[in-house]
Amino acid sequence: MTSLVENQNFRVLFSFFLLVLFFSHTVSVFPKHIDQKKPCKQLSFYYHDIIYDGGDNVANATSAAIVNPPGLGNFDFGKLVIFDDPITKDKNYLSEYVARAQGFYFFDKKLGFNAWICLTLVFNSTEHKGTLSIMGADLMREPTRDLPVVGGTGDFLMARGIATIATDASEGKRYFRLKMDIKLYECY
Amino acid sequence: MTSLVENQNFRVLFSFFLLVLFFSHTVSVFPKHIDQKKPCKQLSFYYHDIIYDGGDNVANATSAAIVNPPGLGNFDFGKLVIFDDPITKDKNYLSEYVARAQGFYFFDKKLGFNAWICLTLVFNSTEHKGTLSIMGADLMREPTRDLPVVGGTGDFLMARGIATIATDASEGKRYFRLKMDIKLYECY
Amino acid sequence: MTSLVENQNFRVLFSFFLLVLFFSHTVSVFPKHIDQKKPCKQLSFYYHDIIYDGGDNVANATSAAIVNPPGLGNFDFGKLVIFDDPITKDKNYLSEYVARAQGFYFFDKKLGFNAWICLTLVFNSTEHKGTLSIMGADLMREPTRDLPVVGGTGDFLMARGIATIATDASEGKRYFRLKMDIKLYECY
Repeated sequence: MTSLVENQNFRVLFSFFLLVLFFSHTVSVFPKHIDQKKPCKQLSFYYHDIIYDGGDNVANATSAAIVNPPGLGNFDFGKLVIFDDPITKDKNYLSEYVARAQGFYFFDKKLGFNAWICLTLVFNSTEHKGTLSIMGADLMREPTRDLPVVGGTGDFLMARGIATIATDASEGKRYFRLKMDIKLYECY
Repeated sequence: MTSLVENQNFRVLFSFFLLVLFFSHTVSVFPKHIDQKKPCKQLSFYYHDIIYDGGDNVANATSAAIVNPPGLGNFDFGKLVIFDDPITKDKNYLSEYVARAQGFYFFDKKLGFNAWICLTLVFNSTEHKGTLSIMGADLMREPTRDLPVVGGTGDFLMARGIATIATDASEGKRYFRLKMDIKLYECY
Repeated sequence: MTSLVENQNFRVLFSFFLLVLFFSHTVSVFPKHIDQKKPCKQLSFYYHDIIYDGGDNVANATSAAIVNPPGLGNFDFGKLVIFDDPITKDKNYLSEYVARAQGFYFFDKKLGFNAWICLTLVFNSTEHKGTLSIMGADLMREPTRDLPVVGGTGDFLMARGIATIATDASEGKRYFRLKMDIKLYECY
């Protein structure tokens, strides 16, 4: 008899427990997939930027400076560039693009080249439809540098993570190519 | 005997329960209110932009280009506009504003009109006090396009979500109106 | 008798289980530390901006306007400033900097001074390595105003929170100093 009562007590407790568990999922918190070692999505590609020279490269150019630097130091401090750059899977800028990178960057150091960048990757392929928005300091003298991915839409709705970039090639002020590796730690 | 059976039932249940708990932590679990079908907050309104013409519309103008486009293509590539635009509940730009949209946009396509925008909605009414910050590509040729809401303050502390915009009206380069629908999926 | 023992085993297990559940909600599970009253990290410091005057203050200047305002009102509407500003622990702008603030701001009101700002704090000290990205309206007429922290890297990977700023000093258009208090509510 005692044991039966105990078991009924248990059932009450157990039901209560299930209730708590249930509510913990509707009331309380926590994104899925937050795990530094295991991103929920990874993407790798190349970013190409061909700067408009004000003359005859209109056909190839994918970006243009909109102001002349104001003269603070010798490293283009304040030069602001707007771009619509192709993103490709390989290093050839003529390859079919998998996304466009739309945004701007500017140089912001008196004593060396350094940049700050803000961009949206616009995907419109069979593989991915949607956008990822990225913003942060581009510490050009570092071999690799991280930028936060602060939001996304479409396939990347509510995404957050890190974009790691490295300068892969550059030809004076006419062209540069970045390797870009994206790791998302929040996916919905 | 009965009680023993009960206890074995309990063990089965208990094991199952542990299993559920285990999976709930690896597979499910969401920030509160992360549910694409059920945003935690929704807002709808109209955004008005009256561009300064450099002359006599100072009284009405709510935005101004700060540079002339550098000449890359015929679609104002590189034209950068700074704004402090009224947000209203209805389509009339003279209606009382419920928020101001402060930020900037620029055009960034050689072969058609396309923009990139970054803005903060500043609410200071009895209904809402606080801000929402939004950034991303404005793919003007799409009937509707999504921009990520990347942060907020005040009533919108730590908010994240999506702003869906659609061009609702435009009068040449003098005025345009956007319909803006905001869905927040993270609210704190 | 047997059943009673079983039930006691159950109680031990059940208590243990509750304990696990309790700690899973306070210690583990993600994002940790979402709690408005208890930030997971707090930082306080001063931000200094010395504006390039186009002449002889190159050595001291940490920022520069890249355009002349287009003339919409009398409060520098549209003036865009790019900066690489020192962040110090005390009010002396000559103190060793603990971070650099890289980014831009612009003025955006016809009828008074008001700004919009976007910046990345770049930490590279023994104490902190990494970045925090911040963007939003800087309602200069408010004694204090909040800006959302929308992302981070390094020690601040995936961080989110609020930066509260207050104008601490200003000398005309040559210099200003902000007090900046950062509270992170998401840390990983």
